[in-house]
Amino acid sequence: MTKLFLEDLAVGQHFGSGCLRIDAEDIKRFATEFDPQPFHLNEQAARETIFRGLAASGWHTAALTMRLLVESEFDPAGGFVGASMDELRWPRPVRPGDELRIKIEILEIRPSRSRPGQGIVKIRVATLNQKDKAVQVYIANIVVLGRRKEDSGGKAAADEKI
Amino acid sequence: MTKLFLEDLAVGQHFGSGCLRIDAEDIKRFATEFDPQPFHLNEQAARETIFRGLAASGWHTAALTMRLLVESEFDPAGGFVGASMDELRWPRPVRPGDELRIKIEILEIRPSRSRPGQGIVKIRVATLNQKDKAVQVYIANIVVLGRRKEDSGGKAAADEKI
Repeated sequence: MTKLFLEDLAVGQHFGSGCLRIDAEDIKRFATEFDPQPFHLNEQAARETIFRGLAASGWHTAALTMRLLVESEFDPAGGFVGASMDELRWPRPVRPGDELRIKIEILEIRPSRSRPGQGIVKIRVATLNQKDKAVQVYIANIVVLGRRKEDSGGKAAADEKI
Repeated sequence: MTKLFLEDLAVGQHFGSGCLRIDAEDIKRFATEFDPQPFHLNEQAARETIFRGLAASGWHTAALTMRLLVESEFDPAGGFVGASMDELRWPRPVRPGDELRIKIEILEIRPSRSRPGQGIVKIRVATLNQKDKAVQVYIANIVVLGRRKEDSGGKAAADEKI
């Protein structure tokens, strides 16, 4: 894939990803290590909870989303360095057998004043299941490197003034 | 631990947790599965990145925080069901050998109008390293069950009117 620099990005751009399938064993293994609660560990116990059945930890969904992001069409130079998240929601549970993919949209691009040559890009990442229903949505601010001056002529210098 | 119901909580309450140590192998194992980027996978490669050394994936820190939360003094009836997060920040990297613990503060309590007997509790969860520096801070809205009417007399009924 071609690495994307700050100057290659534009508000409104969309990027897609491949798919990842999650099964009951994955859900339980993650939960055993990180989120040992009945609705993530045991089908029978989960039926009597608010989830009414086994559901993945939201952090498992977030971690799988990161994997999809790293392998997605959106490939920023310098990698994914998350500065912060503005919001994170889990509108519906992830169930055993679900197949997840993500949709990424560029919402905002702010070249850094203090660090010429890089910027903060606000992205919306929606994680969808096989029925195209959102199971997770977040808005993240990530650090993206600008092209070096020798690569881009006067472009990076112009950005620094903003 | 005593299970906490909505009526047991008050704005300003604080809760602590135990400690979890993270080492280089943990960082690499999580990253291999969920966040395969050089700064989470390989000490040498990490030195040339923005992190200047191996650092845990932010989602690894979030997952460990969940583990600390589940085992913390804050033990809501019905478990931790995250409705949404208002923000999530990683102010500094988590390094191999760090020992993490969390501090939980109750920020807001809103009994549900549509679902009497439960409410949304806004909590601030700060994850600190062994130097008491925050490595992650988030504000989450979690669903907390109210005490059943037969357990609490008129108290739950009063909440429902709010």
